[in-house]
Amino acid sequence: MGIRLGPNRYGKAENRVVRIVRDTERHEIRDLNVSTSLWGDFDAAHVEGDQSAVLPTDTQKNTAFAYAKQVGVDSIEDYAIALGRRLVAATPVAAGARVRVEEHAWDRIAVTGEPTGHDHSFVRRGGEVRTTEVEVERDDVTVRSGLTDLVLLKSTGSEFKDFLHDEYTTLPDADDRVLATSLTASWRWGLEGRGVVDWNPAYDEVRSALMEAFATTYSRAMQETLWAMGRAVLELRTDIEEISFAAPNKHHHLVDLSPFGLTNDGEVFIAADRPYGLIEATVTRDDA
Amino acid sequence: MGIRLGPNRYGKAENRVVRIVRDTERHEIRDLNVSTSLWGDFDAAHVEGDQSAVLPTDTQKNTAFAYAKQVGVDSIEDYAIALGRRLVAATPVAAGARVRVEEHAWDRIAVTGEPTGHDHSFVRRGGEVRTTEVEVERDDVTVRSGLTDLVLLKSTGSEFKDFLHDEYTTLPDADDRVLATSLTASWRWGLEGRGVVDWNPAYDEVRSALMEAFATTYSRAMQETLWAMGRAVLELRTDIEEISFAAPNKHHHLVDLSPFGLTNDGEVFIAADRPYGLIEATVTRDDA
Amino acid sequence: MGIRLGPNRYGKAENRVVRIVRDTERHEIRDLNVSTSLWGDFDAAHVEGDQSAVLPTDTQKNTAFAYAKQVGVDSIEDYAIALGRRLVAATPVAAGARVRVEEHAWDRIAVTGEPTGHDHSFVRRGGEVRTTEVEVERDDVTVRSGLTDLVLLKSTGSEFKDFLHDEYTTLPDADDRVLATSLTASWRWGLEGRGVVDWNPAYDEVRSALMEAFATTYSRAMQETLWAMGRAVLELRTDIEEISFAAPNKHHHLVDLSPFGLTNDGEVFIAADRPYGLIEATVTRDDA
Amino acid sequence: MGIRLGPNRYGKAENRVVRIVRDTERHEIRDLNVSTSLWGDFDAAHVEGDQSAVLPTDTQKNTAFAYAKQVGVDSIEDYAIALGRRLVAATPVAAGARVRVEEHAWDRIAVTGEPTGHDHSFVRRGGEVRTTEVEVERDDVTVRSGLTDLVLLKSTGSEFKDFLHDEYTTLPDADDRVLATSLTASWRWGLEGRGVVDWNPAYDEVRSALMEAFATTYSRAMQETLWAMGRAVLELRTDIEEISFAAPNKHHHLVDLSPFGLTNDGEVFIAADRPYGLIEATVTRDDA
Repeated sequence: MGIRLGPNRYGKAENRVVRIVRDTERHEIRDLNVSTSLWGDFDAAHVEGDQSAVLPTDTQKNTAFAYAKQVGVDSIEDYAIALGRRLVAATPVAAGARVRVEEHAWDRIAVTGEPTGHDHSFVRRGGEVRTTEVEVERDDVTVRSGLTDLVLLKSTGSEFKDFLHDEYTTLPDADDRVLATSLTASWRWGLEGRGVVDWNPAYDEVRSALMEAFATTYSRAMQETLWAMGRAVLELRTDIEEISFAAPNKHHHLVDLSPFGLTNDGEVFIAADRPYGLIEATVTRDDA
Repeated sequence: MGIRLGPNRYGKAENRVVRIVRDTERHEIRDLNVSTSLWGDFDAAHVEGDQSAVLPTDTQKNTAFAYAKQVGVDSIEDYAIALGRRLVAATPVAAGARVRVEEHAWDRIAVTGEPTGHDHSFVRRGGEVRTTEVEVERDDVTVRSGLTDLVLLKSTGSEFKDFLHDEYTTLPDADDRVLATSLTASWRWGLEGRGVVDWNPAYDEVRSALMEAFATTYSRAMQETLWAMGRAVLELRTDIEEISFAAPNKHHHLVDLSPFGLTNDGEVFIAADRPYGLIEATVTRDDA
Repeated sequence: MGIRLGPNRYGKAENRVVRIVRDTERHEIRDLNVSTSLWGDFDAAHVEGDQSAVLPTDTQKNTAFAYAKQVGVDSIEDYAIALGRRLVAATPVAAGARVRVEEHAWDRIAVTGEPTGHDHSFVRRGGEVRTTEVEVERDDVTVRSGLTDLVLLKSTGSEFKDFLHDEYTTLPDADDRVLATSLTASWRWGLEGRGVVDWNPAYDEVRSALMEAFATTYSRAMQETLWAMGRAVLELRTDIEEISFAAPNKHHHLVDLSPFGLTNDGEVFIAADRPYGLIEATVTRDDA
Repeated sequence: MGIRLGPNRYGKAENRVVRIVRDTERHEIRDLNVSTSLWGDFDAAHVEGDQSAVLPTDTQKNTAFAYAKQVGVDSIEDYAIALGRRLVAATPVAAGARVRVEEHAWDRIAVTGEPTGHDHSFVRRGGEVRTTEVEVERDDVTVRSGLTDLVLLKSTGSEFKDFLHDEYTTLPDADDRVLATSLTASWRWGLEGRGVVDWNPAYDEVRSALMEAFATTYSRAMQETLWAMGRAVLELRTDIEEISFAAPNKHHHLVDLSPFGLTNDGEVFIAADRPYGLIEATVTRDDA
């Protein structure tokens, strides 16, 4: 019974690419974290130590920085697609390339007398991070767009009750609780036979739809909320095939103030770090 | 030559207090990280193991949560002052209490048809964290307000040149560079003989002044920028006695694209994690 | 074209279970981070908000703690299998349960006059974290054992050269470099028709084999080193079916000391945080 | 009332210096994180933007790397003293330099047939980090040695009771609890009129004494334990003037298993992240 190489991939992770567009006095900034990897027939590199088919991770890094200049970063999706295509083209034995990009948003600093903000001074926005993951194969491209660390909270309009009980169940029914999460979501685009997606406004649309669905859905469980958020996105954009969520249920425990003669009608909570619920779900088109 | 107890303090760190104000259907949220400590004559606890003068850290925690209900959190400064006073009052041997609070800001989620945002659904803002550190002694209170993790960047308008050279110096003069920092700042209030500070608008004022000074100062070094920022704050608010900064110089290294036949006129940078410059400075009134 | 629920799972993540065995004066400690999740037909919870088939994540947490007492933690694998079986049994609609456990090792504190260390005082060992991931389905169990954060470094005996070049390649050949990684590995056990694995000594065996293969393999690339490590493990234990690696290539850049009149023959390096290479590979039996 | 510059300092933080000693086939490794800063009359840099007296932080970085070669790293204390002296000497307006070093320990990988471990392959030890902080002034040097992240736990032999009560106190007396901390300690050397300290064995001695005192002291509070640990060190080494501790009380809460018909006599705990107690104390010689 022999031993063989199974699935493998390699690349350069977390290239911190900052691109300043300074064609005019009003600069733009794109602040990225770029990870690339290649897969394919790299057996010789592993088994024989022969690197002749291996495009170095250092070259992948160089390409990530060079492409920030050459093709620019109008959107992280367009940049990632171009970068993935280049890496596959440059590596004959590669079957495909994956490019992941995280983008941190910046705002212009407000300055007296400059109503649209300063030309070249910025403050990092914080909040969620926009993401994309592109997989480029020889004759196919898959694009996912997404976000991570979108921290949402409802201070009412959430319950959890009438659940399954066993002998380890002590949780009481909750008619009114805090629901909070730090959302990770990614949606896969169906690109066949369609026009080009305008990635930046599309991102804003999806992000807003996710938040509005979170806000306006009465929640009988995080699961139901994710379903509502997923449906809202698929109904909004028919060019999205599916959307996946990972939603930690960030518990906010009501603090017992009764020993101090105080009532606590959903007013004072301790936010817990660990453990946390973790709810994962995909919402998809029937034919996806 | 004997051995004795030197300076000491003890308390409860990082109480994650979340206060929902729900007196009307339009809720408010205050999201805090509260740390308290006491100092004074606690020798017996150390040397003899006698805990009779020690207010438990668990009680300090309880008080932090109870006070979020009892006195509320109109501002973190007012809350911290009240909490510190309580802890000193409850602990006869305590000489003083320190209360540190970090506050994470939240925004209302935008919802169709609700122009001022949702009543009870929120998204964490991200960006900088507002802070306060209050020291309450028997007959004195010192209040510092501040912020941390305010990430600022100028894509031009910054140089560093004509510096001291020794035989280990290889840095070339830079006429035009990226200047970036993740600012921590705190300012001490002079409270004697003055009216009460309106803490929340005061915070917004100082934050804006810091950012505007960063944006509009041509920088010959991070040191000069901090000086300008400090002056701006002290000129704006005569009730602030001094302001202290810790400003990591987050290096953005220009990437050499010439091997690829590309120019790079301040357009593509690699953002470095470590090492980083670290510039610390205090700007103060002459008589402070 | 309809919308439907796709894959989903839910559970409680990062239960910090600490189990003290104190049946005698010589205590033992098991320090765990336990995550559980369930998958199956939970459509009603998402689509209709009906929680009647949902075993709460709070109950999963309770079970994790209760089982630390009831079945104990002789090994994390045995504990995870028992816990997974319980969760599936308690949840009629569940198709399966995944249980992940991380274990932090502790050593007894050395004490004068107690040659085998103190009975009930411990120091956390640090270094790598032992892991397991168990998937329990109605009639099948899959067990992976593993480790993460095993930080390894060779100060010589590593090269990288004769690789593929394109127009973005600037990396020179390296005949002698530092090779370093923070290894994550997990190996899947083939349990059919075999006796029970003695998990704790098996872990020690595999860990030692991984390290020895890393140490004694001349490396023409991280890929070749991983292949050697994988082969060593599969040759050592015939009850292991495959082993997977994620190995960040933690770059150590040689510092140019020539401006200071100093040579640097592989003596002084700057350890870089980002970017890093990321090499992933599985080594498997032919029939696995 | 004018505005002036107050205290200030600047430097380069977190230089990740890795020094390989390879004079023979049996290599040694020193893995450091080095931070330097200077203070003195740097007013012109702030107020006038004049950098002519400022030794760049980039030069400080270069010196840290060059000195790893030139003076080597026999101990982090000797290296830090030499580096601090150099920086002060190179900067005429500097009043002093502070050098902080963290050292990560490595072990040789065990290899069959090499009883003392591999010549050039290493595994990072994990556990606590050794530290030093040296302040060099024109005619004085202060040396602190220390450690951080030494995680200690006693599974019995710890109580906390008979403490002060107020109306916010709910904590019951504990006769037997888990006591755990992640210790930071640093000790200041009295160097006048004494021979040179042999820093490496001295570190091992102090570390062992701290752990043994933790293990063998019955604890009526973390404060009493710190006092015992401090005394042990000052009694061991008469050339240490004082020792300071920051000891988070890492709470391990006993889990209530009674709903499941199980007893829990100090066997199953949940390790909490936040909040935590934080106990800080200095133990000093009478005349220090």
